[in-house]
Amino acid sequence: MQLVVILSFFAVVIAFAFAVYLYLWVKKQPSENKRIIEVSSLIQAGANTFMRREYGVLARFAGVAAVLIFLFLPEPVWNGSLLGQDGSLVRHFAMTAAYLAGTILSAIAGKIGILVATSANGRTAEGAKKDLKTAFLIGFRGGSVMGLAVVGFSLLGVMAVLLIAADATILLGFSFGASSLALFAKAGGGIFTKTADVAADLTGKVELGIPEDDPRNPAVIADNVGDVAGMGADLFDSNVAAMASALVMSQALDGGFGANTAMVFCYAALGLIASIIGIACARVGKKGNPTGALNASTYTTTAIFLVLTAIVTPLLPGFQWRIWGASAVGLIVGVVIGITTDYFTDDSKPIVQKVAHASRSGSAFTILSGVSYGFISALPAMVGIAVSALVAYMLCDPLGEGYALFGIAMAAVGMLSIVGMIISNDAYGPIVDNARGLAEMGGLGEETIRIADELDSAGNTVKAVTKGFSIGAAGLTVISLLGAYMSEVNEALSGMGKELLTGFDILDPTVFFGILIGAAIPAVFSAMLILGVDKNAQRMVGEIRRQFREIKGLKEGRKGVKPDYDTCIGIATSGALKELIPAGLVTIAATVLVGFIGGPSAIGGFLLGNIVSGLLLALFMSNAGGLWDNAKKYVEAGNEGGKGSDAHKAAVTGDTVGDPFKDTAGPSINTQITVVSLVASLLSGLFAAFSLFG
Amino acid sequence: MQLVVILSFFAVVIAFAFAVYLYLWVKKQPSENKRIIEVSSLIQAGANTFMRREYGVLARFAGVAAVLIFLFLPEPVWNGSLLGQDGSLVRHFAMTAAYLAGTILSAIAGKIGILVATSANGRTAEGAKKDLKTAFLIGFRGGSVMGLAVVGFSLLGVMAVLLIAADATILLGFSFGASSLALFAKAGGGIFTKTADVAADLTGKVELGIPEDDPRNPAVIADNVGDVAGMGADLFDSNVAAMASALVMSQALDGGFGANTAMVFCYAALGLIASIIGIACARVGKKGNPTGALNASTYTTTAIFLVLTAIVTPLLPGFQWRIWGASAVGLIVGVVIGITTDYFTDDSKPIVQKVAHASRSGSAFTILSGVSYGFISALPAMVGIAVSALVAYMLCDPLGEGYALFGIAMAAVGMLSIVGMIISNDAYGPIVDNARGLAEMGGLGEETIRIADELDSAGNTVKAVTKGFSIGAAGLTVISLLGAYMSEVNEALSGMGKELLTGFDILDPTVFFGILIGAAIPAVFSAMLILGVDKNAQRMVGEIRRQFREIKGLKEGRKGVKPDYDTCIGIATSGALKELIPAGLVTIAATVLVGFIGGPSAIGGFLLGNIVSGLLLALFMSNAGGLWDNAKKYVEAGNEGGKGSDAHKAAVTGDTVGDPFKDTAGPSINTQITVVSLVASLLSGLFAAFSLFG
Repeated sequence: MQLVVILSFFAVVIAFAFAVYLYLWVKKQPSENKRIIEVSSLIQAGANTFMRREYGVLARFAGVAAVLIFLFLPEPVWNGSLLGQDGSLVRHFAMTAAYLAGTILSAIAGKIGILVATSANGRTAEGAKKDLKTAFLIGFRGGSVMGLAVVGFSLLGVMAVLLIAADATILLGFSFGASSLALFAKAGGGIFTKTADVAADLTGKVELGIPEDDPRNPAVIADNVGDVAGMGADLFDSNVAAMASALVMSQALDGGFGANTAMVFCYAALGLIASIIGIACARVGKKGNPTGALNASTYTTTAIFLVLTAIVTPLLPGFQWRIWGASAVGLIVGVVIGITTDYFTDDSKPIVQKVAHASRSGSAFTILSGVSYGFISALPAMVGIAVSALVAYMLCDPLGEGYALFGIAMAAVGMLSIVGMIISNDAYGPIVDNARGLAEMGGLGEETIRIADELDSAGNTVKAVTKGFSIGAAGLTVISLLGAYMSEVNEALSGMGKELLTGFDILDPTVFFGILIGAAIPAVFSAMLILGVDKNAQRMVGEIRRQFREIKGLKEGRKGVKPDYDTCIGIATSGALKELIPAGLVTIAATVLVGFIGGPSAIGGFLLGNIVSGLLLALFMSNAGGLWDNAKKYVEAGNEGGKGSDAHKAAVTGDTVGDPFKDTAGPSINTQITVVSLVASLLSGLFAAFSLFG
Repeated sequence: MQLVVILSFFAVVIAFAFAVYLYLWVKKQPSENKRIIEVSSLIQAGANTFMRREYGVLARFAGVAAVLIFLFLPEPVWNGSLLGQDGSLVRHFAMTAAYLAGTILSAIAGKIGILVATSANGRTAEGAKKDLKTAFLIGFRGGSVMGLAVVGFSLLGVMAVLLIAADATILLGFSFGASSLALFAKAGGGIFTKTADVAADLTGKVELGIPEDDPRNPAVIADNVGDVAGMGADLFDSNVAAMASALVMSQALDGGFGANTAMVFCYAALGLIASIIGIACARVGKKGNPTGALNASTYTTTAIFLVLTAIVTPLLPGFQWRIWGASAVGLIVGVVIGITTDYFTDDSKPIVQKVAHASRSGSAFTILSGVSYGFISALPAMVGIAVSALVAYMLCDPLGEGYALFGIAMAAVGMLSIVGMIISNDAYGPIVDNARGLAEMGGLGEETIRIADELDSAGNTVKAVTKGFSIGAAGLTVISLLGAYMSEVNEALSGMGKELLTGFDILDPTVFFGILIGAAIPAVFSAMLILGVDKNAQRMVGEIRRQFREIKGLKEGRKGVKPDYDTCIGIATSGALKELIPAGLVTIAATVLVGFIGGPSAIGGFLLGNIVSGLLLALFMSNAGGLWDNAKKYVEAGNEGGKGSDAHKAAVTGDTVGDPFKDTAGPSINTQITVVSLVASLLSGLFAAFSLFG
């Protein structure tokens, strides 16, 4: 066992060392253009303003949550457990500490992301002046710092919590900390960025007639800040949740730190090592294809992971090929989901072109065809998740009781094993997106902009693949969290001397009751976020108008006159938090209500309904959004009438609808599902004790 | 028992007699305006063309299905059952005959609908020349003929099948016949009508610059035909399915025709009588409010039903207040769902006004806000269905084993008890919609058009209520069909000497596998229908252009030159069937595949996933569509800039997106769910016998 801990620790150390090396390498790249340095530092300052305010609210939220956790978890203090002789007071402290550690590590990861992104964005732009190869390396390595840091922190955190507390339930607290912060980062960041985007578009282009990225527009910096905020947050929390749920089950199977627990750590560590190798090997030729390079690194990493685990894990005591098979199936299905998602959102493939063509008949047809293909695109991913869960279960079922669900958890761990690589690709996107804008603002010339454009477009395409991965992984993770939930509930029920649950039968009316309400929640949650973007954008439009009215010389672009970027960032931030909190509260309130009305079985159903409709809507929204974005780009590239045509106007409408779909609601649903699952697991004792019909 | 049969028969006879009386009353109303008579007869001829071709395809489909049913149902002939000594040959014949009877009765109901609607539409327009009161009565009574006929046929059919075959399984065949025809009528009719609508808009208003309802446009008659085709089909099949599933369970509880079966018939008969009284009482003052009158009749009918059943059913032997309670809960929740749906789609309420206001910022905001409120609107209905299922189950559970699910079935029967009234309201819509167009084409003057407008707008608002009812009822029906499915499967399993199912556990991987795939199906099905509308509209646009090019004098409106309406109707019809069939096949193929891969448990999950996501999407699409339609009307009434403003253009885009949502996809999902449930129940024996993992 010690060997595995050492291996994991070793992987984390290498990952951190490599991340530091890459960060220093990025920092060493030339940064000379004054205009770029200026705008880049504005973005950095803006991002820090956002973070400071966001974390301020979060700290209060986390404080309240910590008190509640201390009072109620692992079980209510009035059960006398606090004063019990079995070290309960320590457990209450441990739970609270684990929760806080989860939020803090997640926050640090976010902070690192902004630091790296704002160092790399300007240098990538300047690198593009040299050649594609250099620019790609800077952008990609910047993203990799984020990827390595996130995965290193999550593995380190999980290991530390488990070794210190020696209690898997405490891990759920850690995971809840990570997820609740991710919910803020992802949904809050999503509202933030689209607020700025929409407000800048509405006032700048439409009212004032200034270009999209013009620095006179006070919302422009906020728009760029939004791109880098909340980056990778959803993958951090999925990764922690996947490990946590696998470890809860492995600990139950092992009765402590045994062979199965070792396996979970071993897979995570080898995945991190595979990612490091994949990152180190990523290259593109001087005139090469960056999309190809990014995808090739993903496939390489996948192959390395499969080979490494096939060689190393059989050396572990108690190794089972079936478990290796489950994690391999998870990873392979992840790749397949990524590829099919790509089919629906890549503009060299027929679907995007069909939507662009439909735009000729008007924006209603852009919307109708995009909605339709978005719905259809959910099918392959749903089938993929369903098949991988079924295969993993069937593979591991013969190993004994409890192994079948553990197999599903290992499929999720497998799918997320290469998450270091996935986050690197994901973080590459905003960096090159920023770089493209900076290249234009810095006046680096047409050829540089063309190269930056090529890098940016690769980022968009690869995003589809990483999103497919993250949604698929969340799906599997939450299935295994459902299993974790049941063991938590049964622990509570057996403590009370009540009858244990054997499953959640659809025909049980409390389960069915939970399913229907659970299914409605992701729809309501995403609707509230989208409406939040709309409301918040209206507030910012007011502020932009005020600045143009009151700041003399701003509109004329008089030298030395600058807009008040910070106020806009402040509006975006406080508005984002204001709109996010009701959506989060509705979700958590619904969970608590269903639990107290229908009891533990209703919550089982609630989680299922939530997963199923959440997956469907997340896939629909992410893919439809990507589809519309690329359909617009396809038209802008001169097809179907090109820029300025009626088809272009219709495609722009599609893109505007798709923006909050893919950048606000879609990615937040993942995190919402995870948060609900963890809340349910943590409160299972309360639901077991008090409920109307349960 | 005989008494109940006599009561039901008596109710059917009164319903038919009253329907004939109302039809003759409508026919007696003046019809003098030549232009109106001419256009009205064109609509009638067009509708008949549509029906003839549709039924031609359907007859072939039904023929193939009948052969398959004969060969495979109730179990495959090669099981030797055909030659068995227990009258199996007779059962195979009975099943096939019941299926065919279901399709034929459903077809007759559709035919009657068209006959009545095309008699009443012109007369309603002329009635509006007199006053609101007269016009309302003609429109409403026309709709009532349809309502009474549909409910009479379904009750008569169910009774006849049960009394002749004395076998509830055969009833599922009857219900499947009704549903498969309803799927054609609703989805086919939905594609048909939106094809014509979209094509007429694209060519007429945009290309040729002729008004919306101009008779020179060859698609105009098809547009009007579409409104009356497929009317009420989904409620016919839900009603049959609700009764069938309740009767399957009651027969099992009674071991034949006993107290519970009598109860089902009694509720259906009393519901029909309550509807007759409600219809007879519906009135509006000379300057009254037609929306209020329609809603008042619904509430009156509800009250009459509750009182009647509370008085009459206690007289039955074996009466249970708990079962009465379950059906009352179902009905009350139906009304509540209707009211909340109304809140989201009525233009005097805040939501529609918010969407209209958002349209000022452009069509993207119309779409985003409409999508968001559409999602939110699903919550109260989902909660309502969940609560009514839970309450019905809890109420009836103490009665003994099997009663809990029967309680849910009775809640569905209760919700649909006043279906006669609901269909009358629903059919009122297309009649007054047509009447409004005819009043304009017949040149009946401004005041008449204003009255027709008021009637039409009431039709739109009330539609929301009836849709809420039909979706809610479908939800409850399908839950009880899930119960019916389980008893069918267990019958098959026990015949094979296999272990019986005790339920469908979410954590069973085959169930989970089924759930995920089942949830994706309504999304794919509705996407295919929406894309079908788009494709088919492009075909019709080509034909319209051809006619204007080749028919001399058409564009100029030379006297005696008429467009070729029939070719357009033909295109709409054949295209509708062409686009519908793949969508239907994908659905049925997915059911069969999941069944043969995952076995009976996977199908249980599949049905659940299908119900849950189907309800969510049906509610979303119907409500968002209604919302956009009324937001456009609200702007056209002079708000937010009024006709011709930018807000109006944006609202028109919303309406165009909403049209196939609410008239093609939304209402078809209901029927799709029912068809899948019935296919699953009918094939349960095959799935029990052959499957990969089951």
